[in-house]
Amino acid sequence: MERVTATYYIETPYAPERAAEVLAGEQSSGTFVAVPGETQELKQRFAAKVESVEVLETVNEPAIPGALSKEGKYHRAIVKVSWSIENFGYNLPVMVSTLQGNLYEITQFTGLKLMDIELPASFGEKFNGPAFGIEGCRKLTGVQNRPLIGTIIKPSIGLTPLQTADMVKILAEAGIDFVKDDELLSSSANSSFDDRVNAVMKVINSHADRTGKKVMYAFNISGETDEMLQRYEKILKSGGTCAMVSINSVGLSGAKKVFDQRQLAIHAHRNGWGMLTRHPLLGIDFRAYQKIWRLAGVDQLHVNGIQNKFWESDDSVVNSIEACLKKMYDHKTVLPVVSSGQWGGQAFETYRRTKTVDLLYMAGGGIMAHPMGAAAGVVALQQAWKAAVDGLTLEEAAKQYKEFAAAIAKFGKK
Amino acid sequence: MERVTATYYIETPYAPERAAEVLAGEQSSGTFVAVPGETQELKQRFAAKVESVEVLETVNEPAIPGALSKEGKYHRAIVKVSWSIENFGYNLPVMVSTLQGNLYEITQFTGLKLMDIELPASFGEKFNGPAFGIEGCRKLTGVQNRPLIGTIIKPSIGLTPLQTADMVKILAEAGIDFVKDDELLSSSANSSFDDRVNAVMKVINSHADRTGKKVMYAFNISGETDEMLQRYEKILKSGGTCAMVSINSVGLSGAKKVFDQRQLAIHAHRNGWGMLTRHPLLGIDFRAYQKIWRLAGVDQLHVNGIQNKFWESDDSVVNSIEACLKKMYDHKTVLPVVSSGQWGGQAFETYRRTKTVDLLYMAGGGIMAHPMGAAAGVVALQQAWKAAVDGLTLEEAAKQYKEFAAAIAKFGKK
Repeated sequence: MERVTATYYIETPYAPERAAEVLAGEQSSGTFVAVPGETQELKQRFAAKVESVEVLETVNEPAIPGALSKEGKYHRAIVKVSWSIENFGYNLPVMVSTLQGNLYEITQFTGLKLMDIELPASFGEKFNGPAFGIEGCRKLTGVQNRPLIGTIIKPSIGLTPLQTADMVKILAEAGIDFVKDDELLSSSANSSFDDRVNAVMKVINSHADRTGKKVMYAFNISGETDEMLQRYEKILKSGGTCAMVSINSVGLSGAKKVFDQRQLAIHAHRNGWGMLTRHPLLGIDFRAYQKIWRLAGVDQLHVNGIQNKFWESDDSVVNSIEACLKKMYDHKTVLPVVSSGQWGGQAFETYRRTKTVDLLYMAGGGIMAHPMGAAAGVVALQQAWKAAVDGLTLEEAAKQYKEFAAAIAKFGKK
Repeated sequence: MERVTATYYIETPYAPERAAEVLAGEQSSGTFVAVPGETQELKQRFAAKVESVEVLETVNEPAIPGALSKEGKYHRAIVKVSWSIENFGYNLPVMVSTLQGNLYEITQFTGLKLMDIELPASFGEKFNGPAFGIEGCRKLTGVQNRPLIGTIIKPSIGLTPLQTADMVKILAEAGIDFVKDDELLSSSANSSFDDRVNAVMKVINSHADRTGKKVMYAFNISGETDEMLQRYEKILKSGGTCAMVSINSVGLSGAKKVFDQRQLAIHAHRNGWGMLTRHPLLGIDFRAYQKIWRLAGVDQLHVNGIQNKFWESDDSVVNSIEACLKKMYDHKTVLPVVSSGQWGGQAFETYRRTKTVDLLYMAGGGIMAHPMGAAAGVVALQQAWKAAVDGLTLEEAAKQYKEFAAAIAKFGKK
């Protein structure tokens, strides 16, 4: 019988082997006293199994509150635990409850983070994965051999639909591939969802009629389930190609219901992610997280960016990009969304470390605040990426491209 | 215009006032450079506002990774930030993205936890809250003036529907009020959801016909949205009164779609909660969490238990019970679910500290493994609670009640 294997980074005042057994017990047939009906055969079939325990360093202070060590020693380890898929079948929420449920409550751990999940072959058939993925998003935008260049409408919230549409017009004429709502805006007092779709799609459709290029706009449909489905339909009917969902706020079941329509590319915004991953010994690592959401069907997934304005390290960003680009079954591959403080200067390091152009590269102020205007902002980003792929340094690129040189002058390190 | 106010416990290497302004900017109209269209009037209307900053202690080590302090000083503070409801209206997922979104990414914080939310009056009308709450759950089970006594079918996973039904028969005859699936079981290879409902409800309906008492069984419907709705309907048609949902795994939008049916009591299981709250300076506190889920419509919500087997302190459990019992608008009040390692001995301390019997008191092994049998296990729990309310000590109760005395002998501290 196929099994799902989870890898955890743990810390415990006990022997790691013992703590791992507690985890496996709690998350399958465990209880605090034996009860009738708990036969050996049944345990064999449904019990979680500790597959391996790799002991790492010992520290003197616990990472998070839990049982105290009498000797003041807390042992770290990588443990692998597996479950038969007979326990939960192809039910993602129940799989999440099994791999990420009450185990975070166990006092025997002073640290516990889900690092990765190995999923069995049959999941590749039972779940369809992304409906569009990299390949589909390239087709929808007509962009090949370079990253999709995107931006977020700023200010995040406050513009009227017509103001938003005016910005989209400027951006479309500037040659942008992708534009999105901020996650703070879905339907505000002065920008109802439908009015915004009407105003923005009028601009996008008219630009497409004239030029043949349809800008992908990710409208933030996040909300209650029926509301999201109505908004999804509204985008579709208006000729839009993409819907944005704040996946952590909406949650797995509501999001998947929307994704299962499979007619719009899904831009998955991971806001709230810091809460789930920022502590090194609590929560979930991006490697595990992105697998769950790829099964659910996201097409584009945020990964932060190199030299971002947030807390995340470049190493972590690179790992996230690589995780997204790794093939999963015969599913389409998810498009990593690079954002946060990006203006093009980071293209060099991003390309040097990932060797890919399969990215949606988002710049906010980097485009709209470009000293030569938004069109030059978009051009500068394309120049930066071309230069990075051509093996130029930032300085060489500045000499060659005047729009990019102007971007450096404004956004580069002072 | 009404505002939503969030209280955060923060840590920062900067002046707390400055860090709070960064948070407010990031979560409303902020971007890294000024852009056209960002007028003062617009800022005024949609900008988040720092309402207060109460500076607390300074520490020498950051709680979580973030910006480094040159002086090695990290300042803690309680900050309140408010948003106009014009920003998100009555959209819970977007409110969550605003209050708990990218702010966890901000490098200026080395700790950030959402402690509480003050919601405006109009939320009380726009959201219906629990369909049943304490009052409705008491009516459905016919239990007044004492806690509802409940248990979880153990082993968590592995029993066939008939084995589960046999246990329910023993428990019903023992006088139990409430029984639930474990969160690990929804539909397993040897216990399909429908078969389990059929087998269990046959027992419960037949017991109700004979005795007039209908045991409330919380079937775990957690799954995809349509699947949950089908399972909900199945319970309803079979004469059941309650559905269980793993709220963190299912997520807000899918869960609310189910809750909005308002025909079954909703048993909200918070597995995964430890990940969101266990670190003192990351995530969300139960006070804030329970408000969001009450708006969504949960009737019963897990709070752990006094002297539990998990990491949570008794103080935290008491705070959670009090949070649930606090009136919210004219909504029905949510029933706190006390569980984890409970066997009746904790009734005394639970009552002493909370002075309430408005609880669903869950014991697992404490009932099924009672030395005189399950019926005596249920009786022992009722005795413990009667004794606690009557002001007896555990020792006095042991002298008066033989079933409870036997429970102490088996489960009390050795």
